[in-house]
Amino acid sequence: MATLPSVSYSMTVRLELDGQGSAVSSLTHAVEHVGGIVTALDVTSAGHEKIRIDVTCAARDTDHAQAIVDALGAIEGVTVHKVSDRTFLMHLGGKIEIKSKVPLRNRDELSMAYTPGVARVSSAIAANPEDARRLTIKRNSVAVVTDGSAVLGLGNIGPEASMPVMEGKAALFKRFADIDAWPIALDTQDVDEIVRTVQVIAPGFGGINLEDISAPRCFEVEARLRELLDIPVFHDDQHGTAIVVLAALKNALRVVNKELGDVRITMSGAGAAGTAILKLLMHAGAKHIVVCDIHGAVHRGRADLDSNLEWIAANTNPDGYAGDLKGAVRGADVFIGVSAPNLLDGEDIAEMNDDSIIFALANPDPEIDPEIAHLHAAVVATGRSDYPNQINNVLVFPGVFRGLLDAQSRTVNSDMMVAAADALAAVVTDDELGPHYIIPSVFHQDLSQRVAQAVREVAQREGQAQI
Amino acid sequence: MATLPSVSYSMTVRLELDGQGSAVSSLTHAVEHVGGIVTALDVTSAGHEKIRIDVTCAARDTDHAQAIVDALGAIEGVTVHKVSDRTFLMHLGGKIEIKSKVPLRNRDELSMAYTPGVARVSSAIAANPEDARRLTIKRNSVAVVTDGSAVLGLGNIGPEASMPVMEGKAALFKRFADIDAWPIALDTQDVDEIVRTVQVIAPGFGGINLEDISAPRCFEVEARLRELLDIPVFHDDQHGTAIVVLAALKNALRVVNKELGDVRITMSGAGAAGTAILKLLMHAGAKHIVVCDIHGAVHRGRADLDSNLEWIAANTNPDGYAGDLKGAVRGADVFIGVSAPNLLDGEDIAEMNDDSIIFALANPDPEIDPEIAHLHAAVVATGRSDYPNQINNVLVFPGVFRGLLDAQSRTVNSDMMVAAADALAAVVTDDELGPHYIIPSVFHQDLSQRVAQAVREVAQREGQAQI
Repeated sequence: MATLPSVSYSMTVRLELDGQGSAVSSLTHAVEHVGGIVTALDVTSAGHEKIRIDVTCAARDTDHAQAIVDALGAIEGVTVHKVSDRTFLMHLGGKIEIKSKVPLRNRDELSMAYTPGVARVSSAIAANPEDARRLTIKRNSVAVVTDGSAVLGLGNIGPEASMPVMEGKAALFKRFADIDAWPIALDTQDVDEIVRTVQVIAPGFGGINLEDISAPRCFEVEARLRELLDIPVFHDDQHGTAIVVLAALKNALRVVNKELGDVRITMSGAGAAGTAILKLLMHAGAKHIVVCDIHGAVHRGRADLDSNLEWIAANTNPDGYAGDLKGAVRGADVFIGVSAPNLLDGEDIAEMNDDSIIFALANPDPEIDPEIAHLHAAVVATGRSDYPNQINNVLVFPGVFRGLLDAQSRTVNSDMMVAAADALAAVVTDDELGPHYIIPSVFHQDLSQRVAQAVREVAQREGQAQI
Repeated sequence: MATLPSVSYSMTVRLELDGQGSAVSSLTHAVEHVGGIVTALDVTSAGHEKIRIDVTCAARDTDHAQAIVDALGAIEGVTVHKVSDRTFLMHLGGKIEIKSKVPLRNRDELSMAYTPGVARVSSAIAANPEDARRLTIKRNSVAVVTDGSAVLGLGNIGPEASMPVMEGKAALFKRFADIDAWPIALDTQDVDEIVRTVQVIAPGFGGINLEDISAPRCFEVEARLRELLDIPVFHDDQHGTAIVVLAALKNALRVVNKELGDVRITMSGAGAAGTAILKLLMHAGAKHIVVCDIHGAVHRGRADLDSNLEWIAANTNPDGYAGDLKGAVRGADVFIGVSAPNLLDGEDIAEMNDDSIIFALANPDPEIDPEIAHLHAAVVATGRSDYPNQINNVLVFPGVFRGLLDAQSRTVNSDMMVAAADALAAVVTDDELGPHYIIPSVFHQDLSQRVAQAVREVAQREGQAQI
């Protein structure tokens, strides 16, 4: 499972070549010789004596990028000028901005959008607070809230460093569902303070997307906010992942012709994502589930259970299996990992039931090398973009919030999430479905609208919608 | 001082006319007969029997708008269909939105703007937190924070109803200074909670604009946040107003050829705006000031002084004048009112010094009718857009924050505010200056840049800038 050069380590190297010196082809050769990939080559100026060339290429990581630059600089007649990291360039000054939806070209427009005209709009909302959903951005706005405690695979890097991720999320909200999301990075990791802060800033928002808050604090933050607020609160790391996993699993089961209520499922990981996946699978009808964490299977007899693990022990693993993960996988139909790299090998997968399904979602290195898993399993999915069947939250969170906002829903519940998963799964038609295509691309054209419609219908049917 | 029809009470009335019925001119006549102003008249469809016409007109207020609609409906052969309030139409769905600054057209772009590429950017900020100012929206973002306690002239209408004003402010920030501001309407009016909430959400912002928070709480909120945060905290109702008043006063003094340090100034109002104006005028060199509130002049001998009034008593009114406002105005060179309507009359102004200057800023009804004031004073300014010399915060807050963000300033201080006022005053050239033109239009082309440059230079000179 060698890492390939990636566009996320893409850079542009500005070079100056002696007119009499080496040919342009030597540049490409040098980059490829050290394992880089040239993706663009632009001559930006050419004179009698000097040629200036911008070489854009992809590297594996930072060290590899440096090795490529060194290789280019070592060519005779070549001088390296500026090296631009394309990813950093893209982030300069942030990734989102505000746009005014109203013209402000003259005094008349100013007097309608701002004082004195705006006073009448404010008065109307003061008289009828529900009008805020009609006359303000509350109709379409989501706060993307983090405390920076569990950002991507980077861990507890704090609020400032989490901002690029939250801005990226806001950009995705706009791109895939035309939602206006704003990042709120909190300078506290105290549960009481997080809850109170979000409650206090909630009036201007139509929904709260919690993001990258570490377990078990995220459970309490979410549960308490759902009690306190009349807008939906959604922890994407939990529920976004759970919805995509359920959708992918339903389609994988279509491939192997098995039923969710019948299959034996072994999970690795009982953190935020693992717990949410477990609960949503159960809500959707899964019955035979064993959850393992770093200490082995979660069962009633274990001594070290916190309240979350206690709930899992009480509601799963009816046979009281008390062994390790490898033993739990034996004879199972489905493995779902949201835990750590390289916990399983080919032999473990070989001992699963026929037509087994492997979702190895630890990032960037899965619980089992997907190429080895393929030798023994019928369907394999990972969290990586360089393998088929990527389990990616971007598939659902925009559509889920689009549906919630359109319904002016007060909440988000498991029925809505199952409906979102069903809608996502249904995007893959019978014709298209196969072991390497259980989940559509995030760029699939009407993905978010279909998820949104499913969520909105449940909200309306269950009386959670306000329109 | 009759109220004129205003575009902020502008509506479009859709009418259907019998083809055989009255002429189109009867519509204009009917509107004008009841005191409205027709600003547009569009025939949207015409058949043999029916004509459909959209009449857009300005009214004085809601009752007047209804009277106009009634007058149109009373014309024979005219049926009134939909009446659209143009101001409300403009506010539907809110006035700002998010825009992504990065393309998200394919997987490569996704992998640079979001995972996995974004992880490198977050790691860079975790290693060097100051990079947040370079690689995130913190470089250009301002939180517009209110508790909804003192919104425009509407009072304590709460957070939801304040949102249209805050969104308008955000739209103005973008329009006049390309700043990305997001409204944060707080569901608390407790000083400790406001301070703590703003502190907790601050990491993602480059500045805090406090807005429409009632006095005296706004003083404490601002003072404590300035202590706690390393980004500038600016209460626009105080300091924005103070800067524009100082700029306008400097230019008014140019008109009458008097010096700030020499003139006798009487103020009416010791709330948020009044106190900020007082302090900035003193910082700029004003020496002879008497401040009146509803109980008369503030002086050391008064019994009812809170800590704010105590400061005023200790630092103004050296002669210990203990009478009422009318007495305080007698013999003064300058009157500045930020208080209540109709406190003064023409006789009061006549008893001021020669070439007196009147800033009657109470909204919508000034401390004295500006037309009467004009009979006795050399220069008159109000807060109204329908008189010359409008004192309007929009003139400075965008430029002030532009300068603070460009300097990556840790704070905003009185030197910066005086510099902003000087820059604003200097926009009016000697050729242009006159009794009716002491302050430029908010649409003056390079206004914000000039204010920004002045603020940035002070920040850099005083070592508050981080670049």
